[in-house]
Parts: sequence; C-alpha cells; structure tokens
Amino acid sequence: MPNPTASMLVIGDEILSGRTRDSNMHYLAQHLTKVGIDLKEVRVVLDITEDIVDSVQILSKRYDYVFTSGGIGPTHDDITTDAIGMAFGVKVEIDKEARAILEKNYQGKGLELNESRLRMARIPCGAILINNSVSAAPGYNIFNVFVMAGVPSVFQAMFDSVLPSLLAGTPIQSRTLTVMRGEGEIALKLAKFAKKNQNVSFGSYPFQLDSEYGTNIVIRGVDPVTLDGLCAALLDQLLKENHES
Amino acid sequence: MPNPTASMLVIGDEILSGRTRDSNMHYLAQHLTKVGIDLKEVRVVLDITEDIVDSVQILSKRYDYVFTSGGIGPTHDDITTDAIGMAFGVKVEIDKEARAILEKNYQGKGLELNESRLRMARIPCGAILINNSVSAAPGYNIFNVFVMAGVPSVFQAMFDSVLPSLLAGTPIQSRTLTVMRGEGEIALKLAKFAKKNQNVSFGSYPFQLDSEYGTNIVIRGVDPVTLDGLCAALLDQLLKENHES
Repeated sequence: MPNPTASMLVIGDEILSGRTRDSNMHYLAQHLTKVGIDLKEVRVVLDITEDIVDSVQILSKRYDYVFTSGGIGPTHDDITTDAIGMAFGVKVEIDKEARAILEKNYQGKGLELNESRLRMARIPCGAILINNSVSAAPGYNIFNVFVMAGVPSVFQAMFDSVLPSLLAGTPIQSRTLTVMRGEGEIALKLAKFAKKNQNVSFGSYPFQLDSEYGTNIVIRGVDPVTLDGLCAALLDQLLKENHES
Repeated sequence: MPNPTASMLVIGDEILSGRTRDSNMHYLAQHLTKVGIDLKEVRVVLDITEDIVDSVQILSKRYDYVFTSGGIGPTHDDITTDAIGMAFGVKVEIDKEARAILEKNYQGKGLELNESRLRMARIPCGAILINNSVSAAPGYNIFNVFVMAGVPSVFQAMFDSVLPSLLAGTPIQSRTLTVMRGEGEIALKLAKFAKKNQNVSFGSYPFQLDSEYGTNIVIRGVDPVTLDGLCAALLDQLLKENHES
C-alpha cells in the first residue's frame, strides 16, 4: 500500500513579506517523513479569504491530509476559521468545549474571556478540537484538514498531539554518501546507477567547502538493508575511475 | 498603479522530505518587498515533471513574475529545464552562449566539459541567460519566469543580477509597535483602529517572553509619515485603558 500523502498550507502575510522566516514547514516535513507520511506539496498564501478557501479545497481533494498553520488567533487578521467554514460549506459557531477550555485558562490567569478571546472558541461545526498544551486556545480537525496555529511552539505542540491519530505509512529512510567531487563529475555514473535501482530514489545535492566542490548523494527507500547495500555499491562505482569518460 | 505581483516555485524533494530547510523563500520575500514587488504566493513541489509544469503554467498566468529555485544542475534529478520547456511548449537545446560560459569556466579549472556538465547549457529556446557569479552555470528568464538554482549562494547571486531588470513598485514600509499585552487584550481596539485606517494594513503577531505575553503590531503601507502618525495614534489608543471592556 502506498504511503499516505500530505500537503501544508501556510497562511500569513508575515512570511510572504519577509518579516518572519517560516519554520513550521521544516518541522512538519521532518516529522511526517519519520512516520511514513509523504509531504507532497506546500503552499504559502496571504491572509486573503478567497486564497485560503481555494487552496484548502484543492489540497484537501488532492491529498490524504492537509495541515494548515496561522490565522486562528483573536485579532481581526485571523480569518482562517471563517475561510475553512466557507471551504466546506459548514457553519462556524462558538464551540462549548473550546469555550470551556478558554474560560478555565483565563480564569486561572485572572483574565477575562472577552469578546476577542472568545473568537478563538469559534470552530466549524463538526470539527474535533486539537489540544494546545502551550497557550490553551485549541486547533481543530475537520474532514482531512488539521487547522493549527502559526506560532512555532504552538504549531509543534498541536502537531505532536495529532500525530498519534494519523494513519502512518512505511517510514522512508535515507543514507547520505558524501563525495568530494563536483556533481558534474559523478552525474553520469550516478544516473546509470539510479536507472538500475528504481526501487529507491537518488538525490544529488552539491556543496562547496572552501574552494572545493562536493556532492551529497541521498538514497531514499523503505528497506535499510537495501539502502546500505546500494550505498556501498555506489561508492564502489564512483571510486572505479576518477572521472567519467 | 498597483505594485507588480510575484510568486515563487520551490522545486525539490529535499525541502519536502525535511532534509533541508529552505532559505531562498525568505531571501526572495525580503528583497522583493524592498523594491515594491508583492510576493503573493509560494508553492513547494517535488521533483516531478507534471507538478512543475502545472505550477509554472498556473503561477505564470496569475502573477507578473514567477521565480523558481532548484533542479537546474547536471544530475539525473535536475528536471526543471525540461519541465519549463513543456510548460511553454518550447524546445530545449544546447545554448551557444551558455556552452561558452561553461567551457570557459571548466577550462580555467582544468576540468572537462563532459556530457553531464553540458546538460547545464540546455536552455529553452528564446530564454535570456541569468548570470551566475558563484559557479558559472547560468539560470534563465523565459516569458515572466526566472529559473534559478537551489543552492542558496547561487540563488541569491542570480536574483541579485536580475533584480535591476525587474519593474519595481512602491516599496511597502512597515512600523512595528511592540506591546507587552496578549493579543486577546488589545484585539478589539486594534480591529476598530484598523477598520478606520484601511489605507494601511495591520498585522498582529503574538509572542511569549519568559512567562509574559506580548504582541508585535506591524503597520504596513507606502507612506512613512502616515505610518509614523498611525503608530503614535495607535499606541495612544492602546494606553487609554488597560483592558478592553
């Protein structure tokens, strides 16, 4: 059975204006890979309702899972929840459970659950809440979409809490072979080797160390024994001659 | 006249597998913002021809500029150029100028322009080369698409060399007002203030410092004097009472 597929929708002007460097994509990519869920696509869009609605509709049809980050706070620029409601034709209402969570949280801090904070209890009908161990206000899961916060510590806490409920696949493992030769020198041999071994994938990533060129060859596949064998065989091939013809 | 719009297409398995953290998006976002070109959307896709073709076609129709990163090296997994050719129905051939650049570069290093390296001279017909001051192999511009390398130092050099040729807009400036209050406490006042001042945009970004909650309010617009005035007026509003009702 093929691995489940996933996509991510990053919602936020602050990423596209260059004010903030996104880190949630990298966190999600690493942790999905570990459990064998293949992240196939990421989109970053502005805080514009229509763009969010379109992207959610397209991505939720195309992939098994969609993870969103950003736009679920208490301020006027937090429009994700209304966009999610529109995307699925579902009403957005104050959720009792979410309200109780917020009440308990703010009472404990001696703060009032005012109109703005109560906005964070507005949840599309039928959604299941996602626990937020950092700052209480929950995310939620509706259909195959997981709606989470943009603040990295909160995004990570929410993702960690939904991870056990996801259908995991076969984790893709990787081996990295680092050679101090430029890509152009090894490319032909690597291509031939990759063509013979299509049960795994070969990525080639050049780097420069001082004035020397090197290449990281990353072999990815599900079986560790196969990967170790291929890694050794490829190294052997590359050592045979210093240059391809 | 509204600012020119832009999008970015990041091409690369290594970003989506979590192996590499992308940095080109942040660089592009910052530098486009400085010259008044509005980055509206970013997509990250795998090294899959069909996905690249689809994304390029959609983004190049929707935005004034498209910037791509990744997949133009000499190895078998570098498929961007063929995908770009397919996206525009244009032949890909060895470009004389690109070949001359590569010949000169490799001769100077005592290296051979072998079959693999020559792949980097394959350019869609009609494209204009983009200078690569780091490692010689050029990027290129075809229609409104700028095809650049994924290695950050090379991406940045290529972008810097095309920047003067882009149609600039009116740079969006920003002022950040940092208040040591949670978003929920200031949200209502901020929303009212934002509604009254729709010629600029107001973003609200929560943060936590030790156990204190704070908010960065970012006001964005084209006129520095307006921004300074609004910044002062908003601060005044927020100081009037400690809590919104």
